[in-house]
Amino acid sequence: MQPTAVGVIGVGRIGTMHTHNLVRHVPEARVKAVASPHIDRDWAAALGIPIATPDPDELLRDPEIEAVVITTPSGRHVEMIRRAAQAGKQIFCEKPVAFEPQAIAEAIAAVEAAGVRLQVGFNRRFDPSICRLAEAVQAGEVGRLHSLRVINRDPRRPPVDFVSRSGGMFLDFTIHDLDTLRFLSGSEIEEVYAVGAALVDPNIGAAGDIDTAIVTARLANGALCVIDNSRETHYGYDQRFEAFGSKGNLTVDNLKPTTVTSYLKPGVYEDTPLPSFIERYQDAFIGELRAFLRSVREGTPVAATGEDALAAVEAAVAARTSLAENRPVHVTRRAAGAAEGGSR
Amino acid sequence: MQPTAVGVIGVGRIGTMHTHNLVRHVPEARVKAVASPHIDRDWAAALGIPIATPDPDELLRDPEIEAVVITTPSGRHVEMIRRAAQAGKQIFCEKPVAFEPQAIAEAIAAVEAAGVRLQVGFNRRFDPSICRLAEAVQAGEVGRLHSLRVINRDPRRPPVDFVSRSGGMFLDFTIHDLDTLRFLSGSEIEEVYAVGAALVDPNIGAAGDIDTAIVTARLANGALCVIDNSRETHYGYDQRFEAFGSKGNLTVDNLKPTTVTSYLKPGVYEDTPLPSFIERYQDAFIGELRAFLRSVREGTPVAATGEDALAAVEAAVAARTSLAENRPVHVTRRAAGAAEGGSR
Amino acid sequence: MQPTAVGVIGVGRIGTMHTHNLVRHVPEARVKAVASPHIDRDWAAALGIPIATPDPDELLRDPEIEAVVITTPSGRHVEMIRRAAQAGKQIFCEKPVAFEPQAIAEAIAAVEAAGVRLQVGFNRRFDPSICRLAEAVQAGEVGRLHSLRVINRDPRRPPVDFVSRSGGMFLDFTIHDLDTLRFLSGSEIEEVYAVGAALVDPNIGAAGDIDTAIVTARLANGALCVIDNSRETHYGYDQRFEAFGSKGNLTVDNLKPTTVTSYLKPGVYEDTPLPSFIERYQDAFIGELRAFLRSVREGTPVAATGEDALAAVEAAVAARTSLAENRPVHVTRRAAGAAEGGSR
Amino acid sequence: MQPTAVGVIGVGRIGTMHTHNLVRHVPEARVKAVASPHIDRDWAAALGIPIATPDPDELLRDPEIEAVVITTPSGRHVEMIRRAAQAGKQIFCEKPVAFEPQAIAEAIAAVEAAGVRLQVGFNRRFDPSICRLAEAVQAGEVGRLHSLRVINRDPRRPPVDFVSRSGGMFLDFTIHDLDTLRFLSGSEIEEVYAVGAALVDPNIGAAGDIDTAIVTARLANGALCVIDNSRETHYGYDQRFEAFGSKGNLTVDNLKPTTVTSYLKPGVYEDTPLPSFIERYQDAFIGELRAFLRSVREGTPVAATGEDALAAVEAAVAARTSLAENRPVHVTRRAAGAAEGGSR
Repeated sequence: MQPTAVGVIGVGRIGTMHTHNLVRHVPEARVKAVASPHIDRDWAAALGIPIATPDPDELLRDPEIEAVVITTPSGRHVEMIRRAAQAGKQIFCEKPVAFEPQAIAEAIAAVEAAGVRLQVGFNRRFDPSICRLAEAVQAGEVGRLHSLRVINRDPRRPPVDFVSRSGGMFLDFTIHDLDTLRFLSGSEIEEVYAVGAALVDPNIGAAGDIDTAIVTARLANGALCVIDNSRETHYGYDQRFEAFGSKGNLTVDNLKPTTVTSYLKPGVYEDTPLPSFIERYQDAFIGELRAFLRSVREGTPVAATGEDALAAVEAAVAARTSLAENRPVHVTRRAAGAAEGGSR
Repeated sequence: MQPTAVGVIGVGRIGTMHTHNLVRHVPEARVKAVASPHIDRDWAAALGIPIATPDPDELLRDPEIEAVVITTPSGRHVEMIRRAAQAGKQIFCEKPVAFEPQAIAEAIAAVEAAGVRLQVGFNRRFDPSICRLAEAVQAGEVGRLHSLRVINRDPRRPPVDFVSRSGGMFLDFTIHDLDTLRFLSGSEIEEVYAVGAALVDPNIGAAGDIDTAIVTARLANGALCVIDNSRETHYGYDQRFEAFGSKGNLTVDNLKPTTVTSYLKPGVYEDTPLPSFIERYQDAFIGELRAFLRSVREGTPVAATGEDALAAVEAAVAARTSLAENRPVHVTRRAAGAAEGGSR
Repeated sequence: MQPTAVGVIGVGRIGTMHTHNLVRHVPEARVKAVASPHIDRDWAAALGIPIATPDPDELLRDPEIEAVVITTPSGRHVEMIRRAAQAGKQIFCEKPVAFEPQAIAEAIAAVEAAGVRLQVGFNRRFDPSICRLAEAVQAGEVGRLHSLRVINRDPRRPPVDFVSRSGGMFLDFTIHDLDTLRFLSGSEIEEVYAVGAALVDPNIGAAGDIDTAIVTARLANGALCVIDNSRETHYGYDQRFEAFGSKGNLTVDNLKPTTVTSYLKPGVYEDTPLPSFIERYQDAFIGELRAFLRSVREGTPVAATGEDALAAVEAAVAARTSLAENRPVHVTRRAAGAAEGGSR
Repeated sequence: MQPTAVGVIGVGRIGTMHTHNLVRHVPEARVKAVASPHIDRDWAAALGIPIATPDPDELLRDPEIEAVVITTPSGRHVEMIRRAAQAGKQIFCEKPVAFEPQAIAEAIAAVEAAGVRLQVGFNRRFDPSICRLAEAVQAGEVGRLHSLRVINRDPRRPPVDFVSRSGGMFLDFTIHDLDTLRFLSGSEIEEVYAVGAALVDPNIGAAGDIDTAIVTARLANGALCVIDNSRETHYGYDQRFEAFGSKGNLTVDNLKPTTVTSYLKPGVYEDTPLPSFIERYQDAFIGELRAFLRSVREGTPVAATGEDALAAVEAAVAARTSLAENRPVHVTRRAAGAAEGGSR
């Protein structure tokens, strides 16, 4: 079967990673074009990509390009989704689609009007261990779900100037975990309560954001959940998950670069967890693109929809309000039934 | 050195355990008397305990008995502390000292007036792994403390009739975890927010209590904490602890009865965690009695004071209010500076 | 039930440990007497032991003393067993009973003639994890047994003067592992091949011994076994076991003092294994004495017999010959059927 | 930089795997041709490989093809190496190069005469965990090396007809482990002693081979080593390594497909190890081809030479003799200094 012609719009850090993955690890795709204001044509040529352009419309006009990967700065996601939808492209867009629910709703409306698919970059949904956990929960291995725990801690604090345009910790960072609660449980977040502080870096606090948070969430199915976030571990990218229910508890532990253990006089040493999301979720980053292209080919639903993006942002906005007002906040829902079955 | 003559008042499940530990594993003690309404004299004789009586005053009047262990039903703790203090005995009392802060304050006043010591049965403070964690936190191994996590889950739900006289989950069960937050951090709990539900057993809900809870706590030192409780795991007694800070993360994992791992066709199996608090905290139960008797002999402060009991109950009461009113609740403090250094 | 009156003969390092265990942790025993050339009467009195004497015959003549624990230097074990047997005492003797099979055979003959029991200090047979492994092997959990692995490594090299009177590494140290092969498999050692060297300490080599060895053993049931020994780890007492068969593999890992794991910048740290045999096999040291006293009371067979001691020494002598002559050596057997069922 | 044009000779199970890896994961290579008696042209076309031919000479005559990967049946390796060398190709050849040292010596002579490189498929040398272990050993992290342990157990017994043409367990299977001893230690194998039996499958025994073995090896540097082999685990591909020395012990544990742990009533479960060498050594299979192509480009030595192949076969032949004659066997060496530094 012929690979699908794909264009990538936006080749910053994440766009570059997705482009490399598409070229090297996604046999379902052929990257025909990359677009970015400051595009590096030599880099594109070395990867065998025929078209490298500063103008995204050059991609959108190309009738052979069936699918686009949108990795522009977040603020331009909705506009690009709208233009790509109007051009009839199938769309993969990085998270967050937007910082405001209303904007995501508009993006959803645009893709529905155009009859194209939109998949959102919720990479956790494609991680082998997290998928196994979700399947186990939904197969009843833990019985009735009582609680979920997500630990998500970044290895290194972000630069303060990134923080100030990131949408805030909940929309930029915790959003993955809020989506993971929905993915693991197949249920909706009804209420959240957030505590947070700038404990890692007072400059993050001065910029109006936090770097440490604990978010409690109550799901529609009655489960009680907790998310534990930090912007800096020093010991690698800490990603742990736990689902507890009437029959037992399932956990997902960190991945490490090697299985070497050193028994030496002062103690027993192992590797720290993988250093960043790039290594930790490499299989998931490849998996989400392959799943997207299979959905495109086979006309099947995508595994992380615009409605999923909307629901996660609605919960993140509620967490932001909770932190600001120090009270539990009910999550206002626009997207009816978005999490049924955990995916669509 | 001669062992200290000790009397045990109340020999239900916990009192029996403490008595066995005193006889077998606490060389600093000689159990001279046990008192309980339905005392089993043969049992006492077999343990070599000279006096077995239904009347606690028989113990309190014995001038040779220097210290008493109070393990009556919780509702009689304060009264017994008062009587033992008036009799000039050194006092070890099981938790909870009382369900109401005012009652604990009265007990504290009584022991202060009598010039005796009161140690409270916060056994976690004597567990080797938790002690190591506390020492590491206070030695700065995790840097500035950012967050604490406690998972405390019982293997089997309690009988409903126990629940109805237990003081409720926070005062009966979570109280250990609230004390552990103080012990690990050396800081006070300022505010709590609790979510909870009867997910294990609807009869517990019908009895007005919960069996599943997540309690978020904000400490005076700025750390953000979370306690995860359940009344039933099926897989053993789940006791895990985690301290995260500016330099890294320290965890305490469960203990298991053996280190056997079975690699078989369907999977790799290990033992479940130890079955109950009796096995899990055996060393701690022995350790707290030995520490108490050393404090008595050496005239040194005890490691879990009446003020510690008061502070934990104040936090548990705040959690109860938080759950009832679904809002974060500030912890009202009577006990000034109770957690300085985590122990006294 | 009244505890059995016990005498301890020989109170060096191991004898002291056994005495403490008997007094503190073995309710089936009452230590009535201890005998040792340089006995410390104050120590005995503090432990509540009525008789402390330089003369072992004082114990042996005491009609109330039903059982003795022999922990003299190894060279006097057989003589003491003979005298204790003649005095009609039940006997627990530390390993090695003797360095030469003939001497052990004489000890066995003496206890048989006197109609008393002899239990040998093969403590591994009472360790909870190793017992679980043995039960699993004999219950067929690994299917037909294909191979066994024992790693036994001491934390610290012994003094050279100890080495020169120890009987050599195989008789002093590996003997535990040779017994463990028999205990785990319920089968006899038919042939051994040993390689060894003084890699830890050239002075041990100069004294005619080795400190590092790999011993291959072929069992009567066809299983192939390997023992890995070292006299010095620096990282604690390394005790690991593995049973592999037609259905899978079971392993026993080291024990650690705490379950604390530290995730810090340079790596993930855990405790080293327990520091010495004292801590690692504490439960087993207590368990073997309790089992001995139960056998005495209930008239049941002991779990580590003179024949077990003989079979292990026969294998150790064969390993010594193998090392000297660099060839596989058939194990000469005197003790017929000694390992049937792994215990008697 | 342009990728190197590569031809693959022999596309059975391993050749197919290498071809897929070259196409998908080795950017340094462009597969121009594949040759095999029963070549599947559609398969080759789907992979974008221009030439698919039953005739290896078609590859060897193509001047653009600079390097060949030889994955024919083992019996034709030496002939193919000779022809490829004469054609001036750089050569990657699967293990075993041949079953007889003389044949490997001839292959080495042929590549030396032609002035081309020969890399042998000792994939362990490219596994991240094993490489880390080798670096640690050679950097002195364990101090002076005292012992090495390799556990290598296949998940499923091979078909008996494979066994009869495999060269026997030592030459087909243990050869990886013998090479690993040299790679980890940077030292030569001087003497081996092997015990073995057909415990997994009597038909393997009837075919004149074994399926279970323990091989003891003495290295030139004085270290004592043991290899533990089985042809069938049922629980996945068991690959563990251990290096013990004067400062401590380093271990490499198995890899698992996920990090999910299930705490359920009967026990705690984890995944079994990866199911086969394909998954376990995927990174190593890719790594060895990339390293080969970098050596070709940069004119640097390869990391697994013909001399390495010769030394491993010499040790395997000695193990075969040891098993047949039940005695330790000195390894006859043709390849002087082959393991210096553990690689060349």
